[in-house]
Amino acid sequence: MNRTPVVSALRLYESIEALGRIGRYLDEASGLYGVNRLALTAQDGEGRRHVVAKMKSLGLAVTVDRIGNVYARRKGREDTLAPVMMGSHIDSVPTAGKFDGCLGVLGALEVMQALDDAQHVTRRPLVAAFFTDEEGSRFGSDMLGSSVATARIPLQTAYALRDRAGLSVQAELEAIGFLGETAEQLAPPFAYLECHIEQGPMLRREHIDIGVVTGVQSISWHEVTILGRSAHAGTTPMELRADASVAASRINLRLRQMALSGHYGEQLRATMGAMVPVPGLVNIVPGQMTVTVDLRNPSDVQMRRAEADIIAFYETVAAEEGVQIRWRQTARTSCVPFDAAFQDQIEAAAQRRGLSTRRIVSGAGHDAQELAHLTRAAMIFVPGEYDGISHNPRELSTPEQCANGVQVLLDVLLEIADAE
Amino acid sequence: MNRTPVVSALRLYESIEALGRIGRYLDEASGLYGVNRLALTAQDGEGRRHVVAKMKSLGLAVTVDRIGNVYARRKGREDTLAPVMMGSHIDSVPTAGKFDGCLGVLGALEVMQALDDAQHVTRRPLVAAFFTDEEGSRFGSDMLGSSVATARIPLQTAYALRDRAGLSVQAELEAIGFLGETAEQLAPPFAYLECHIEQGPMLRREHIDIGVVTGVQSISWHEVTILGRSAHAGTTPMELRADASVAASRINLRLRQMALSGHYGEQLRATMGAMVPVPGLVNIVPGQMTVTVDLRNPSDVQMRRAEADIIAFYETVAAEEGVQIRWRQTARTSCVPFDAAFQDQIEAAAQRRGLSTRRIVSGAGHDAQELAHLTRAAMIFVPGEYDGISHNPRELSTPEQCANGVQVLLDVLLEIADAE
Repeated sequence: MNRTPVVSALRLYESIEALGRIGRYLDEASGLYGVNRLALTAQDGEGRRHVVAKMKSLGLAVTVDRIGNVYARRKGREDTLAPVMMGSHIDSVPTAGKFDGCLGVLGALEVMQALDDAQHVTRRPLVAAFFTDEEGSRFGSDMLGSSVATARIPLQTAYALRDRAGLSVQAELEAIGFLGETAEQLAPPFAYLECHIEQGPMLRREHIDIGVVTGVQSISWHEVTILGRSAHAGTTPMELRADASVAASRINLRLRQMALSGHYGEQLRATMGAMVPVPGLVNIVPGQMTVTVDLRNPSDVQMRRAEADIIAFYETVAAEEGVQIRWRQTARTSCVPFDAAFQDQIEAAAQRRGLSTRRIVSGAGHDAQELAHLTRAAMIFVPGEYDGISHNPRELSTPEQCANGVQVLLDVLLEIADAE
Repeated sequence: MNRTPVVSALRLYESIEALGRIGRYLDEASGLYGVNRLALTAQDGEGRRHVVAKMKSLGLAVTVDRIGNVYARRKGREDTLAPVMMGSHIDSVPTAGKFDGCLGVLGALEVMQALDDAQHVTRRPLVAAFFTDEEGSRFGSDMLGSSVATARIPLQTAYALRDRAGLSVQAELEAIGFLGETAEQLAPPFAYLECHIEQGPMLRREHIDIGVVTGVQSISWHEVTILGRSAHAGTTPMELRADASVAASRINLRLRQMALSGHYGEQLRATMGAMVPVPGLVNIVPGQMTVTVDLRNPSDVQMRRAEADIIAFYETVAAEEGVQIRWRQTARTSCVPFDAAFQDQIEAAAQRRGLSTRRIVSGAGHDAQELAHLTRAAMIFVPGEYDGISHNPRELSTPEQCANGVQVLLDVLLEIADAE
């Protein structure tokens, strides 16, 4: 009889640390090392080769598809059945920590290793996956690899995306050696499970070990271009200006006011992350400004209200400031609910391990929301220190927090993959 | 007996058009050609060679000093006397028109040519000058060449200034072939006269031909760095954020509120021209933001009040938003009055030509304010169409407006240069 498969907290954490040394940089503000592995950069390439080597050392069969998603397959006792897939991503925002995405990928490999240790072969085959460019920081489209794999975005559309320097996804995949040959459209796996850090404060504040994710909230991104009139800052009377930066600032403060108002539910998040004034010089009233707006809401109804209101505010600002405001939708996803039965299984598995749980909505987008269009999907959240700060070098989940999540991942995986 | 020297409006305007074709670009918003001859770029180099060739074709003796200022000297009847200097600049902001600075330089050469036409040799020698990097758009320090020539800024300090790409003033002077050999500190000329477009709406609105400039208003520039905390835009609750872009937006709106309030006189101008969020991505709360503040005021007392109040507001915002705000002064000049007797002479000369005049404070900084520390200086303004818009491709003064200013320049120059 096999031993019960058990996750090694130390091995898992060392594996997270090792990947976190690739693409690291010293953040001067905090004195901490951060991670910068923007999708399809040399740093991402190095991270990918590191993880692929790890997959191969576990004896897994590695394939790379045409959008650079990487799948590592472990045989099942009934190997022709649809596999159970675990996954996440290893690309990062430019100012990241070590955990976002990596916990899910390295956690999946820790599951594989724990199964090896226990000499446990599941009935169904297993796959550990990492998907290309989940963050969207470089090419402007998040969950890129998983949305191509699930046919939401055509391959050629994804290939043609370009970064600010004009480099395309296709060229950059090729440059780092991850323009694979297997078909990008994924045959539906039997199930998809993803372990991830919460990236928010709820679990840590309430001293909860495991977040049972009910779904992913709605996301809406606008790119807003404000056309005013550039003018001399020293001579142009205030009342004759059409100052694009003032218009942008008014929209930014309105976003916060909306989020704090409670008029769109209690969980509207609203952010102006990018602001680019043209010409962007001290002594010139900016004649143009491009900014981004990021809205999140766990309610589709409230999201639509928030979107309508900010769009109406663009028009108000345009009229009052004498500028033109154009906007385009750069991302839009509705709320995605996760599989209800899997949520119950995650909750029960955690409780069997003596871990506290709560249901939680994901504030961030995740590859699991794309896979949910293809198969039954679920996510397990673990808490993070410092109010769960993420996309920041201070991002930190402890070895215990990480191992708890991956152990629950393993326990639920076994239930699903071994079920007759 | 000599003929009376008379400016040719057509020749002057064609000369402005010719220089305006160097570094031109098509402004998509307006469909107009604009000018981009940032200081010490290849475009500036081409503009400089064009003007130097023109100087030489007029038989003037051209020298280039160690900061790249160019002086073209015309002999006087008593050639050892201190010269009367005319000048301005030919560098531009990246989104400029054809007139800013160029009118003063090409106007000075038109004066030389009109004197040649009339076979008039003045008692004192004359100099037409153009000064390096008046705009300050590239290396962050405006009136650079004239302030080195008048010993306000040491040569080595100027040489060491770098643009955003890390290129130094010294290296770029050398690269365009204008690292001259004559001493940079200027022997005081007998007088300095500069003709310039108003860059504001006053003259045009009141149908005035000639602005008699009483002085240049005070200028204060801050570079403000806001240190917040980068965080995930989808998950971080609004109340846990330290959003540098929100802090910047509040400062921007406060600047406008101050300028419109009338609490700092009626002519406070306040502008946030540059805004650089870090990391500047759609889905990350900006953890850092660098912005610029440009304040102008024709009253030194009101300027000091405005500066004190905006600095106090930085502290208020820092406390309320949970961010750190650091600022440094990147430029600061007090009000500079021009020579009172010259103002009277300009007014009288204009009236003799049947031109209407009014006294006016300069909203912009000019090389004349630097020269005013070395000698008696004065400025003549001409109106601009479209409310005198400047630092914009729409900048436009008519042939008649330009020629009026240069004719008054010539008339006053003769009074000064021929006086016994």
